[in-house]
Amino acid sequence: MPAPAQFVEFVDTHADKFIQRLADAVAIPSVSGEAGRREDVVKMAHWLNGQLNSLGVTTELRDLGKHVMDGQELSLPPAILGRMGDDPKKKTILIYGHFDVQPAFKSDGWDTEPFKLVIDSKTGRLIGRGSTDDKGPIMGWLNVLETHKSLGLELPVNLRFCFEGMEESGSEGLDDLIVSETKKGKEGWFDGVDCVCISDNYWLNDRTPCLTYGLRGLSYFKIVVQGPARDLHSGMFGRAVHEPMTDLIALMSKLVTPDGKILVPGVDEMVPAADDEEKKIYNSLDYSIADVEDAVGGKIAISADKATVLMGRMRMPSLSLHGIEGAFYGAGAKTVIPAKVSGKFSIRLVPPQTPDKINPLVVKYLESEFAKLNSKNQLSVECLHGGKPWVADIKHWNYEAAIKATQAVYKKQPDLTREGGSIPVTLTFAESLGVNVLLLPMGRGDDGAHSTNEKLDRSNYIEGTKLLGTYLYEAAAISA
Amino acid sequence: MPAPAQFVEFVDTHADKFIQRLADAVAIPSVSGEAGRREDVVKMAHWLNGQLNSLGVTTELRDLGKHVMDGQELSLPPAILGRMGDDPKKKTILIYGHFDVQPAFKSDGWDTEPFKLVIDSKTGRLIGRGSTDDKGPIMGWLNVLETHKSLGLELPVNLRFCFEGMEESGSEGLDDLIVSETKKGKEGWFDGVDCVCISDNYWLNDRTPCLTYGLRGLSYFKIVVQGPARDLHSGMFGRAVHEPMTDLIALMSKLVTPDGKILVPGVDEMVPAADDEEKKIYNSLDYSIADVEDAVGGKIAISADKATVLMGRMRMPSLSLHGIEGAFYGAGAKTVIPAKVSGKFSIRLVPPQTPDKINPLVVKYLESEFAKLNSKNQLSVECLHGGKPWVADIKHWNYEAAIKATQAVYKKQPDLTREGGSIPVTLTFAESLGVNVLLLPMGRGDDGAHSTNEKLDRSNYIEGTKLLGTYLYEAAAISA
Repeated sequence: MPAPAQFVEFVDTHADKFIQRLADAVAIPSVSGEAGRREDVVKMAHWLNGQLNSLGVTTELRDLGKHVMDGQELSLPPAILGRMGDDPKKKTILIYGHFDVQPAFKSDGWDTEPFKLVIDSKTGRLIGRGSTDDKGPIMGWLNVLETHKSLGLELPVNLRFCFEGMEESGSEGLDDLIVSETKKGKEGWFDGVDCVCISDNYWLNDRTPCLTYGLRGLSYFKIVVQGPARDLHSGMFGRAVHEPMTDLIALMSKLVTPDGKILVPGVDEMVPAADDEEKKIYNSLDYSIADVEDAVGGKIAISADKATVLMGRMRMPSLSLHGIEGAFYGAGAKTVIPAKVSGKFSIRLVPPQTPDKINPLVVKYLESEFAKLNSKNQLSVECLHGGKPWVADIKHWNYEAAIKATQAVYKKQPDLTREGGSIPVTLTFAESLGVNVLLLPMGRGDDGAHSTNEKLDRSNYIEGTKLLGTYLYEAAAISA
Repeated sequence: MPAPAQFVEFVDTHADKFIQRLADAVAIPSVSGEAGRREDVVKMAHWLNGQLNSLGVTTELRDLGKHVMDGQELSLPPAILGRMGDDPKKKTILIYGHFDVQPAFKSDGWDTEPFKLVIDSKTGRLIGRGSTDDKGPIMGWLNVLETHKSLGLELPVNLRFCFEGMEESGSEGLDDLIVSETKKGKEGWFDGVDCVCISDNYWLNDRTPCLTYGLRGLSYFKIVVQGPARDLHSGMFGRAVHEPMTDLIALMSKLVTPDGKILVPGVDEMVPAADDEEKKIYNSLDYSIADVEDAVGGKIAISADKATVLMGRMRMPSLSLHGIEGAFYGAGAKTVIPAKVSGKFSIRLVPPQTPDKINPLVVKYLESEFAKLNSKNQLSVECLHGGKPWVADIKHWNYEAAIKATQAVYKKQPDLTREGGSIPVTLTFAESLGVNVLLLPMGRGDDGAHSTNEKLDRSNYIEGTKLLGTYLYEAAAISA
């Protein structure tokens, strides 16, 4: 059951109106990470709520309490829960999106005003903060609803919505809301949800649509080495005392090799090697070593083998050294022996790794390596935060529907990808609801989410709207 | 020829007046490192110049030009050149001191107002910024002059003075002045100088006076590793690309061991081992491992052997890792892969090491270690600045005079020490004038120069004034 032809046609003929909707959304600078913009995030919630209501969605704004930001206590912006359709014969799909955005100032290097959507008619780019992350996809869903309302078409599935305004600032309050609504059973907003669809990531490249079925988890560590009571002058005490930086650098050098192998015993070993069949998946992705090197702006791929590089990003754990707190970090030369230094590193986790399994291995290893240094300084290791990895079953009808929809709209087989980063709400939905979660991106890999000149290509927005609607029809058609 | 009894007596009976002179000097907040205090440094120069003139010293204020600080162009405070006595039968001694001070705010943790000299009658401490560094010693010289003037005594030597107001901010302009005045020969201010005396360091402890005859030099390095064109997200690119931090940490871990051995081939080896006689000097110093550990506030001495610890500070090179520019340095957790990171470290040098001999060894070693990493990132090594070490001949009459003066005033044998840090002007005087330079400290090791609650003990100030005067008599008496 592909989407009706009139649906597709309506989207094409109303493209300009839909772009205006995106422009209206971008014009509200709903930056969750700046206290001074909090009112705009709330304004955005009300604007979106109004749109949903006018398109027939029953909603509730949920107060998520207060938090402290920049030393001020602030009310969190409300989350929006929505419901449309209660037909027991239809599948029920939960849609997630976020209406807050990253900070943006023209002075950061934008070519245009970040909160004014600019349509570049030459390139087809719709440029503005939030265009691709994540207002474009939310507007896509509104476009689908408007099309059905205008045409008097019935939706092929029941929909539930969960939109938040704090994703760019840690999704504060959302996990509790999801868990509590799930626990309520029949009384909860997520009762009867059959699957989840999240559009908040990107294609691998600028050519080929993708579906994402895995995310890495994370364990973030802080290694603290301290010795003297205060910072020392290296002239006075160099070679007279054990220096915390020397010890810390020695420890940090024992974590990972320049080609990415993790040296903490048991970490890499926990992950089963990919067999030839799995390697084929990576070799067949429309993403080359040259694409990776273009994306990072340097010829620094960790291997000349495509599968090795892509698996390194998608299905292998990785360990990155982020920096040191407490040491000299400025320009110029300062001859300090810092008294207390904290090395920061994190390990991206893949199944079956979890923070609970990994953290003890890291702590034990660091303590044993520190003992070998014979230093009189003191070591402590903290895990600052952690999150489990997530992998979905790509043989589930939810993925089958998305693959068919992609073929129908883009006439292409989508890349099936795992992402190296985390989208924590994905795991919350998967674990709380116990249903299949699909990541169905709208934008391209070069959209520059979080960066200057963020854009969504017009074709991704319009074809993406078709993709979202078509996915609902394909999902409805498959016998679960 | 010890100092006349009336000199010593006058100093004792006029102690309160001399303390008032120090209080007047401390009251002028001559902070050279703050643009807003520049006028006070100039005011201090004029105040000191007036004192010198009133005590019979011919002076000249020397304009040192301009410099840029905090984005403003500022005039450098003038240096003061002074002259007293031209008797060809007498020795001529050049005195150096600096009348600028480190910044100080009560909110830094001072118990009293930093620019008001507080006399703690219980402990005998004179507390205030600049009390020990370096206004106390300069006032000591003024006290010596005043005593002679009041008593109608003739000085036993000719004196030359060189006082600057930028020592705490890199002594800008001073080296050129010294070199040019020296080159002028008969026309220059330093013509005929037989030796130099600098009071700008401290006893090792709070008990035993010392003379300092050596300072370490310095080579300061910046190792830059870069790869991607911009910072990357560790989720997106961890284990897909060579990470600059991994390479940098690997390199920094290969420079020094936790017990201070320098791993750059040829650096430690350049310094001849101490023979038993030299070790005896260190074992006999009134400075224990417990003193070192008290000073740093931690039981972290690099060895249980006293001579090893003291030689590590005074006569061995040391390598300290100071920090990293460009990496994450804040509190909390940030999952960045920094694009370009610069590791900072420095090597304190001792004779016969010089930056010219050491730097090529460091560059070559780092390049060869980097090659072993097989990374596709790029390395560059810069030497940010360097200075030669300095060691004086302690058998020179200049030291002999200071030793005799110490015995006369303190009834103690002074510790003969080398310092781990640098006082660059020492080397400039030694090299330009080609004469013996003596470091004759007035204050104690716990004075807290550069720190909060900086103090000079009353006894160090008053006995120190006697020491400076007595030193002149002893110097005059020795047949050079």
